[in-house]
Amino acid sequence: MYRALIQKAEPYIKEGDETIIRKAFKFAVNAHKDVRRRSGEPYIYHPVAVATIVVEEIGLGTTSIVAALLHDVVEDTDYTLQDIEERFGPKVARIIDGLTKITETTSKSESIQAENFRKMLLTISEDIRVVLVKLADRLHNMRTLSSMSLDKQLKIKSETEYIYAPLAHRLGLYNIKSELEDLSLRYSNRKVYNEISEKLEETEEQRKRFTKSFVKPLEKDLKKHNFEFRIKARTKSVTSIYKKMRKQGIPFEEVFDLFAIRIIFDSPLPEEKSVCWRIYSIVTDHYTPNVKRLRDWISVPKANGYESLHTTVMGPDGHWVEVQIRSSRMDEIAEKGYAAHWKYKEGSGKGGINKERGIEQWLNEVRDILEDDKSNAIEFLDDFRSNLFNKEVFVFTPNGDLRVFPHSATVLDFAFEIHTEVGAKCLGAKINGKLVPLNHELKNGDQVEILTANKSKANEDWLKFVKTSKARKKIKDYLREDKKQVASLGREVVERKFKQMKEPFNDKTVSQLREYFGLRTELDLYFKIGNGDIDHTEIKKFREMKEENQKSPKYVPEDAKEFKQKIRQIRKEGDELVIGEDMDSVHYSIAPCCNPIAGDDIFGFITINSGIKIHRTDCPNAVSLMANYGYRIIKARWASQKDEEYDVLLYIEGTDRIGLVNDVTKMISTQLRVNIKAISIDTHSSIFKGHITLSVRDSREAEKMIAKLKEIDGIIRINREV
Amino acid sequence: MYRALIQKAEPYIKEGDETIIRKAFKFAVNAHKDVRRRSGEPYIYHPVAVATIVVEEIGLGTTSIVAALLHDVVEDTDYTLQDIEERFGPKVARIIDGLTKITETTSKSESIQAENFRKMLLTISEDIRVVLVKLADRLHNMRTLSSMSLDKQLKIKSETEYIYAPLAHRLGLYNIKSELEDLSLRYSNRKVYNEISEKLEETEEQRKRFTKSFVKPLEKDLKKHNFEFRIKARTKSVTSIYKKMRKQGIPFEEVFDLFAIRIIFDSPLPEEKSVCWRIYSIVTDHYTPNVKRLRDWISVPKANGYESLHTTVMGPDGHWVEVQIRSSRMDEIAEKGYAAHWKYKEGSGKGGINKERGIEQWLNEVRDILEDDKSNAIEFLDDFRSNLFNKEVFVFTPNGDLRVFPHSATVLDFAFEIHTEVGAKCLGAKINGKLVPLNHELKNGDQVEILTANKSKANEDWLKFVKTSKARKKIKDYLREDKKQVASLGREVVERKFKQMKEPFNDKTVSQLREYFGLRTELDLYFKIGNGDIDHTEIKKFREMKEENQKSPKYVPEDAKEFKQKIRQIRKEGDELVIGEDMDSVHYSIAPCCNPIAGDDIFGFITINSGIKIHRTDCPNAVSLMANYGYRIIKARWASQKDEEYDVLLYIEGTDRIGLVNDVTKMISTQLRVNIKAISIDTHSSIFKGHITLSVRDSREAEKMIAKLKEIDGIIRINREV
Repeated sequence: MYRALIQKAEPYIKEGDETIIRKAFKFAVNAHKDVRRRSGEPYIYHPVAVATIVVEEIGLGTTSIVAALLHDVVEDTDYTLQDIEERFGPKVARIIDGLTKITETTSKSESIQAENFRKMLLTISEDIRVVLVKLADRLHNMRTLSSMSLDKQLKIKSETEYIYAPLAHRLGLYNIKSELEDLSLRYSNRKVYNEISEKLEETEEQRKRFTKSFVKPLEKDLKKHNFEFRIKARTKSVTSIYKKMRKQGIPFEEVFDLFAIRIIFDSPLPEEKSVCWRIYSIVTDHYTPNVKRLRDWISVPKANGYESLHTTVMGPDGHWVEVQIRSSRMDEIAEKGYAAHWKYKEGSGKGGINKERGIEQWLNEVRDILEDDKSNAIEFLDDFRSNLFNKEVFVFTPNGDLRVFPHSATVLDFAFEIHTEVGAKCLGAKINGKLVPLNHELKNGDQVEILTANKSKANEDWLKFVKTSKARKKIKDYLREDKKQVASLGREVVERKFKQMKEPFNDKTVSQLREYFGLRTELDLYFKIGNGDIDHTEIKKFREMKEENQKSPKYVPEDAKEFKQKIRQIRKEGDELVIGEDMDSVHYSIAPCCNPIAGDDIFGFITINSGIKIHRTDCPNAVSLMANYGYRIIKARWASQKDEEYDVLLYIEGTDRIGLVNDVTKMISTQLRVNIKAISIDTHSSIFKGHITLSVRDSREAEKMIAKLKEIDGIIRINREV
Repeated sequence: MYRALIQKAEPYIKEGDETIIRKAFKFAVNAHKDVRRRSGEPYIYHPVAVATIVVEEIGLGTTSIVAALLHDVVEDTDYTLQDIEERFGPKVARIIDGLTKITETTSKSESIQAENFRKMLLTISEDIRVVLVKLADRLHNMRTLSSMSLDKQLKIKSETEYIYAPLAHRLGLYNIKSELEDLSLRYSNRKVYNEISEKLEETEEQRKRFTKSFVKPLEKDLKKHNFEFRIKARTKSVTSIYKKMRKQGIPFEEVFDLFAIRIIFDSPLPEEKSVCWRIYSIVTDHYTPNVKRLRDWISVPKANGYESLHTTVMGPDGHWVEVQIRSSRMDEIAEKGYAAHWKYKEGSGKGGINKERGIEQWLNEVRDILEDDKSNAIEFLDDFRSNLFNKEVFVFTPNGDLRVFPHSATVLDFAFEIHTEVGAKCLGAKINGKLVPLNHELKNGDQVEILTANKSKANEDWLKFVKTSKARKKIKDYLREDKKQVASLGREVVERKFKQMKEPFNDKTVSQLREYFGLRTELDLYFKIGNGDIDHTEIKKFREMKEENQKSPKYVPEDAKEFKQKIRQIRKEGDELVIGEDMDSVHYSIAPCCNPIAGDDIFGFITINSGIKIHRTDCPNAVSLMANYGYRIIKARWASQKDEEYDVLLYIEGTDRIGLVNDVTKMISTQLRVNIKAISIDTHSSIFKGHITLSVRDSREAEKMIAKLKEIDGIIRINREV
């Protein structure tokens, strides 16, 4: 394994660097020598695999390879950062410091995970290699996730979905991003993952045949014009297919852009843009393009440095085909992202300015947010994620300068981007000469002129529609100043009231009060009391409630310690929580966000106030919960014997005809003998759409019903709503 | 003049053709020898000028030149079509037949104008040159319109706007279309026309300077790459600037694309598409393009054959600039349209198929509609106009075939385009996999799969949303079959009732009955009586009303004859109708559609039932009225002494601040001493929009008020609503 690593590293390292890599390898082998991974392999396999990813898939050099080899030494063995720095220098030590988790005891925060993220991200502005090595580490962990316990799997896959995949995307590491997402999906919704993978396999032969005949005339013509090129067919990742199916509510068969054709050509840098368009011209000679779907990332590259020309053309059999045209240089940047980008940076001339602006602008913004952030770790993460935007929108200042914003950013984001003062005094804008309010969303190509008034009006509502972390942070800073003053009044009130009630005034009791009112931070609590949103007399009610709870045997809010004990007990008793059986001792409920029914893949999430909530593993909310509070996850499954019935919500759509609703209800009540709990169907110009709520015993029964209803003439689509 | 014509014609005619042209010229000189135009010139000037346009601006050959020279001979002199055919052959005779108006006596229809249009258009399928010569004729008439009387001016300019300009557009004659529109605007709204023209002149120097600096780096780079090219700067037509101002509610200064840069290059045909994209690549090397505004009419030419690549880029000073890239061949087609298109037709290879499809498909459709049309002339014109669509939408069949539709065409239009049966049984469609109803509008690049059911449901509602004349015609055919049966019942009812009332049953009385119920056709009348929409007893009321009217002295519905007499009398008494003075004898009212006030340019329109309606010359409805009923127009002006007050509706928009509404009302009531009749203002996220109705004495007072209100801080826009 090590030899393979060195071989792959050769093109990326300087002469003589092998010595230090070998030294790091030996050091790591020795440090981890007694340890094995859960899969049974010697532990050293992991750092070597991470170092290989660092070289092979990200294209980094010696320092990063050494850091990858040593990345777990400080955390898992007795060696200290000091030891590393003495042996491998300060650069490697700093990277490893960023990668080493903080110990639980050093943090007071409720989410150690979030704190760890914050620690890692804080190093971005110093050395982005910390994040790149971390992504390699995470990728290898995801590849070997099957040997982990189910709750660990869920926690790790959620973190991956929540922060690592978006981060990889933001850094232009498209391959790593897709693999991370696909591996996550495999663990959150194995059934869907398998279904799509199988269908992709089944249709592969067919796709190959199609590609061959589609590509043939292009190849001939490109050769005729003496282009140096190669053509690849690339299938969409399982996750992006799944997202498309969900977003548009369509089955696999109707996802029209399952794959793309990529034409990669060799050309000297000054010519490459022109060559792109010449090839585009040849492609559209043969196939009619859909002008709406032209994506020109060669005139204006993406913020993460991605350059390519995409067009979607109508294939010979009535299927859309996406064709991506790019040079070898662009291709390497697209595959390896950030590192490859810097490799080309020097020689890239004018185009380079564009690309540099993208990543540099982003790093500057990240620095801005990180530098003096006053929010708690979870809030911080939320803000940070909003900076990892997927889609971008390009707009212009009145002077014609180009600015990039996350998709659906508003006039107010633009104003704060120009200047904090402009943001704070923003009233609206003129876009292409038309007056628009400050929550108006920016569209590609808008030219934006901000209108201001002399009195600042920044308020809470603004946070509801701004999209950039910069605007969010500035607004919060502004509000915080206001809020602090009000909160200090609130604090005095609480202190006084507690004194009156003979309640001790300390972290624990204040935290209980905060939880009683369902608030996130102490500042919120004091603020709401300070400005009168919470009536002072209600503080007394909290006290009464608390006293009553101490008497009552039923489930009551507990603090973290008692809670952990209970969970430890459940975990000890069996491998998983069995829902519907032997559950008198545990207070649990079905999460309304995803409404799981027997038969669904589920997990338990331990809440502060409401016992254990049962979520589906593919619940959209669960990812953020698990990524931030992984230690609260508990495995769960349904009891095999069930008497309960569950509500399931079906979405139904089709062409209208007389008697159709009757056919549907008849099918359900008589043939399927299932109870209809609610139905609402709306017909508009011969198309009907609606929802039906049914009582079923498990997910298999629901699926059987869907299959049966699909047979009714006129029903075009029916599926379970999440 | 004749010599200049022959010189210009040389490249377009065969050797020896000059003889026949000379013969036609001499014949026309002789035939018109005693006649002069209203401007005082000998009449022959006109046919020679038309022939010159035919050659120079449309690029037609000998037959068309001869027809142009002779086009007024049959109508205005004693020569017959027979005479023409004997001397110049059947082709020329057929064209002249198409150009000769029908005499009023041969038509029973209420609109002779519409009948004349129909006659002309019917020849399109036989020989499109009829329309081309007619356009040349109309262009010359518009150029010399100033010598006509005001009501003739209004009638002619309305026809031009209504049918000739759209027709020129449809045939790709962009220059002629723009000139026709600008001349029309000059006569419908001279003030606006002059304002915009003056502003264009004032800013010309500035535009020239800008163009020079904008073009400089492009020229340098294009030369470096050895392109053969020339660059022109082309200013938008006055009409398109005005339309943009109205549509977006912005002043001249904010119309961002006042002009376009055109790069015209020479290149052999097989290379031209590739050259377009290479030039595009060079342009976007220097200026950032707005990807949303790329118009690729080289991969998919417009239905009228127009080919060009348009992009809008951000200029160095923050202004958008449209750049049009095209070959010399494309440029000639764009300027001369149809004729130039056929010139290139043979050599054009694959690209030609696309273009041919456009015009040919259209001619086929026109033929379809014309062939067995059962509607009356005005309905026919309406339908026909819907085929002269301005904007297009490209969609695909499930097999991937490209189809072109007018902008905002619906699923149902698509269904009828596929097949009449598919249309009649259409329930909705799947577009890109999503279910949509049949009134869903098509978007560029949609792939449309029609869903049908076995029972046909074609109904009146469908006519409300279909956009193509084909669908409209098919639906009407279908409904007409139904309707005819019901109508024949209705006819029997009327006949019986008339007999009972001792009213004679003839064309005149039935027409009176039709007008009494406000219906357009006899079929409608009989149908509504047949199906019970009109109660049978109401026919009696018509009779009573009629009797009463005969006694009463006040204005009552009159039939066409009495009406004409009255008008003739007014016309005799003075040059124009003077509103507000000496008007007791004439029943008139202010049209609610455009709400003219004293000071506005106006005209009178003689209605059947409500006397004379006063419209603004730029009223949006007036164009269609005047184009179809030119003989009902009567000149009008406001009396110089006025005591009346008029309501004027102002639109107001701006950024909100405390006290703003108060400032507005105070300004109006105290400073301007004008009465506010109604006010409604709505504020949403710091932007307010609203309407104010004021009583003013004339348009000057309204304008003064607008200028005054504009000064209030926070008001961004205020203008009079049409």
